[in-house]
Amino acid sequence: MSYNLLKGKKGIIFGALDENSIAWKTAERVHEEGGTFVLTNAPVAMRMGQINALAEKTGSQVIPADATSLEDLENLVEKSMEILGGKIDFVLHSIGMSINVRKGNHYTEQNYDWTQKGTDVSATSFHKVMQTLYQKDAMNEWGSIVALTYMAAQRVFPDYNDMADNKALLESIARSFGYFFGRDKKVRVNTISQSPTPTTAGSGVKGFDGFISYAEKMSPLGNATALDCANYTVSLFSDLTRKVTLQNLFHDGGFSNMGVSDAVMEAFVKK
Amino acid sequence: MSYNLLKGKKGIIFGALDENSIAWKTAERVHEEGGTFVLTNAPVAMRMGQINALAEKTGSQVIPADATSLEDLENLVEKSMEILGGKIDFVLHSIGMSINVRKGNHYTEQNYDWTQKGTDVSATSFHKVMQTLYQKDAMNEWGSIVALTYMAAQRVFPDYNDMADNKALLESIARSFGYFFGRDKKVRVNTISQSPTPTTAGSGVKGFDGFISYAEKMSPLGNATALDCANYTVSLFSDLTRKVTLQNLFHDGGFSNMGVSDAVMEAFVKK
Amino acid sequence: MSYNLLKGKKGIIFGALDENSIAWKTAERVHEEGGTFVLTNAPVAMRMGQINALAEKTGSQVIPADATSLEDLENLVEKSMEILGGKIDFVLHSIGMSINVRKGNHYTEQNYDWTQKGTDVSATSFHKVMQTLYQKDAMNEWGSIVALTYMAAQRVFPDYNDMADNKALLESIARSFGYFFGRDKKVRVNTISQSPTPTTAGSGVKGFDGFISYAEKMSPLGNATALDCANYTVSLFSDLTRKVTLQNLFHDGGFSNMGVSDAVMEAFVKK
Amino acid sequence: MSYNLLKGKKGIIFGALDENSIAWKTAERVHEEGGTFVLTNAPVAMRMGQINALAEKTGSQVIPADATSLEDLENLVEKSMEILGGKIDFVLHSIGMSINVRKGNHYTEQNYDWTQKGTDVSATSFHKVMQTLYQKDAMNEWGSIVALTYMAAQRVFPDYNDMADNKALLESIARSFGYFFGRDKKVRVNTISQSPTPTTAGSGVKGFDGFISYAEKMSPLGNATALDCANYTVSLFSDLTRKVTLQNLFHDGGFSNMGVSDAVMEAFVKK
Repeated sequence: MSYNLLKGKKGIIFGALDENSIAWKTAERVHEEGGTFVLTNAPVAMRMGQINALAEKTGSQVIPADATSLEDLENLVEKSMEILGGKIDFVLHSIGMSINVRKGNHYTEQNYDWTQKGTDVSATSFHKVMQTLYQKDAMNEWGSIVALTYMAAQRVFPDYNDMADNKALLESIARSFGYFFGRDKKVRVNTISQSPTPTTAGSGVKGFDGFISYAEKMSPLGNATALDCANYTVSLFSDLTRKVTLQNLFHDGGFSNMGVSDAVMEAFVKK
Repeated sequence: MSYNLLKGKKGIIFGALDENSIAWKTAERVHEEGGTFVLTNAPVAMRMGQINALAEKTGSQVIPADATSLEDLENLVEKSMEILGGKIDFVLHSIGMSINVRKGNHYTEQNYDWTQKGTDVSATSFHKVMQTLYQKDAMNEWGSIVALTYMAAQRVFPDYNDMADNKALLESIARSFGYFFGRDKKVRVNTISQSPTPTTAGSGVKGFDGFISYAEKMSPLGNATALDCANYTVSLFSDLTRKVTLQNLFHDGGFSNMGVSDAVMEAFVKK
Repeated sequence: MSYNLLKGKKGIIFGALDENSIAWKTAERVHEEGGTFVLTNAPVAMRMGQINALAEKTGSQVIPADATSLEDLENLVEKSMEILGGKIDFVLHSIGMSINVRKGNHYTEQNYDWTQKGTDVSATSFHKVMQTLYQKDAMNEWGSIVALTYMAAQRVFPDYNDMADNKALLESIARSFGYFFGRDKKVRVNTISQSPTPTTAGSGVKGFDGFISYAEKMSPLGNATALDCANYTVSLFSDLTRKVTLQNLFHDGGFSNMGVSDAVMEAFVKK
Repeated sequence: MSYNLLKGKKGIIFGALDENSIAWKTAERVHEEGGTFVLTNAPVAMRMGQINALAEKTGSQVIPADATSLEDLENLVEKSMEILGGKIDFVLHSIGMSINVRKGNHYTEQNYDWTQKGTDVSATSFHKVMQTLYQKDAMNEWGSIVALTYMAAQRVFPDYNDMADNKALLESIARSFGYFFGRDKKVRVNTISQSPTPTTAGSGVKGFDGFISYAEKMSPLGNATALDCANYTVSLFSDLTRKVTLQNLFHDGGFSNMGVSDAVMEAFVKK
């Protein structure tokens, strides 16, 4: 589908690793809707992924940036405005990782250097991105900034480890900075709390497959896919949602407001 | 603006009284986006309003229905499918009133017959609409049902009186019925919690003007207008939001997540 | 245990049916803590239960009252002040029922006369109790009013049927009336959202046993029992919690903030 | 008042600076209720405050500890168990600070080294405390851990700066660790979201006095004081609240569930 919803809009998309990425699907859909953008990712992630293929497909340029580095972010924002020919209308922040998860440290056995690094990459980076955009006055009025998050920020999912806490911090940053971005620049800031999604990054979480199946059974509409999320993000970048801000928006087939579903009870009772 | 977002989609819109109504603006925007629909309102409201002008403008037919009457609702759903030539893709429920408010009964001095009548009109009517649609299997897969609500359902706004409680009930009905509608028919059900909006109906609430100004100062993006709400509703009727369900979506320029704004503190301190 | 936490405090306890009732356990614990009270229940419930045994055990009098009848409630409040020798310090509202559940009507096949009756008994009764207390100025300053509720008010539990919606309405009434009771009388109003509890009333809900076992596995501390709830209610009646008001307090071993537990995932995966 | 609610219970209390501190009042109330405890604070805070006077008054010992230092925390927990003669029943975490606030850096102009230091002191310290207690198996079954927080974790209070985000992180850590502490040790973990309180630490926040007055006018029961908070904390340390866990408990005279009060509207309208 294509509606020209983002015709003339310019943006920056963080975190497209490969075609399983939500950011990848979003870039494709934004392109279809007439938006133009710069792609960016950490240098290390770029080596692992196929971002150049996506750039080619969508007629985009790639600017590597470590989202924890203010210097990189300043360069990214300046170059993006040059390349795109003006201020920015939309930003997608899709960045997160936990070294404790990767290294197999249980939540009750954190290595706090790793915890701190995860916080910097997964949450503080979002503040740094917004602070850079804000100080450079780089966003157009009625622009839209979106970060991806997960419901572990509100409720306990044991295997999500310290990523849960970092998502809570990320969502708070969205509200806190969203106030100033709204008041001073008429820019909205929201987070999308997405269903568990079988991305390459997500597969690092222990027991992820079982959990995807549980979430599918719990959600009256089933899990939202990466493509579903790309569509929803398009709606949040569009002019149809100008007064939505400071919100954490659940995009999960209904999971977030379920206590229990018939399908889960059935599986449970049969045990 | 127009993107053909609702091309080929058919619906029913409740509650368009006059051009200040959110439902009125929604009908206009849905029409611009290519959707077709039946308009409906209570016979008494129709006499007071100008719904026929809206019908003419949007090429729609009007079917009167008391939303508390199962008989009227059955007639409405059947006739709508005949007129529109098939099942329904979208429904807007924009209905609410409080006799206690109208008659000036304080929240601590309820006339419970009036309370019950308000509950029936404002909240139970939404269950009746959905039960009728569900039992008649009248919704297409991936259809979208939206009801308008207000944040008094979560937090205290003293002058909102028993309408606050009815909105809490309405939002619960959206979740409860949304589960079955999602599981069985792949239909999503959500509520939009809208900024205070100077509609003809809203003006009945005591101190409404002062409150609108307070909300404006509290919200980083200012209050959402009726037209803003129409746009947001269009996004929720579209195929971009298929996996959003059971949600209460704040559409309020950020009010709902504010503790206090600089503008409100200033007014307060100056006193 | 006994700490004399409620020494000198006077109250009214609604809803003690038999020794499985939360209200029954609460009456016993309040008595142990030095509080005195009047017991009340609907005439029909009194015939089925053993409230007189509880009255004897706790040195209390029983005043029958249909909580939907203003006349009965006025009589109850007046007589209670006479019997107890002064104004009221605490009230427990533990009342709820659904005819649709009893008669086996699915949520999508409501008999709306029954729905309305359930709303009146389960939710509006709480407003009527508070309106009677407020208008008669029957509460002491820093008194405490508590109603029992269930998390189906926030999230979907399919078998909870229309009781879910009535609990949402009840919780809203607690907030709305709590504002006026706090502002004008320095009285706090809260709801306790309790674990599923195997009371005689609760056993009417379909699939209740399976659900209790699911909740037990989901909750890090296991389900809260009726006695646990009585203890918690005592703390809310005491002077230790004077500034807690308008809150819905989850008392559920942690269930409400769980996304999934290891124990539930295990049961699910094994299937 | 004194009820012997904590007779025989042993604990650790962080953050008593001077007699305005919530932790100070809590120590006094816990002492009155029969609990024994070790007091602790950062060496720098101890030099500024009068903790030794509190220790004398309550018959407690003081063990200095930098709550960001695992070594200090291990020493604290071991020594506390020696001094108190057994495992711990209750812990109060009342620690927070922001260098950005102190130095006058606006939220949109963060010095990220300071941000990170504030996160470590205000939020990660709570994880470190719990990880130390958990790994040393230092808590008794049905013990209770409480951390103090503020509603800026959920809603925007512009002057609260990066402390808002750190409180959101703190609350998430309470849930995440609370799951494992509940499942494995039968220990509950909760946060109290307290009214703005005129402590020596709190007075560092810009516009704090005006805000206290605003909150007072918004809250139907007025702001909760430090002593009120001490009482509430006692109830959460007691055996009356054993099944309350993973909760963020608003203790604020009702502020958190207010949309607007009559008193605030009045001040606003008069402007």
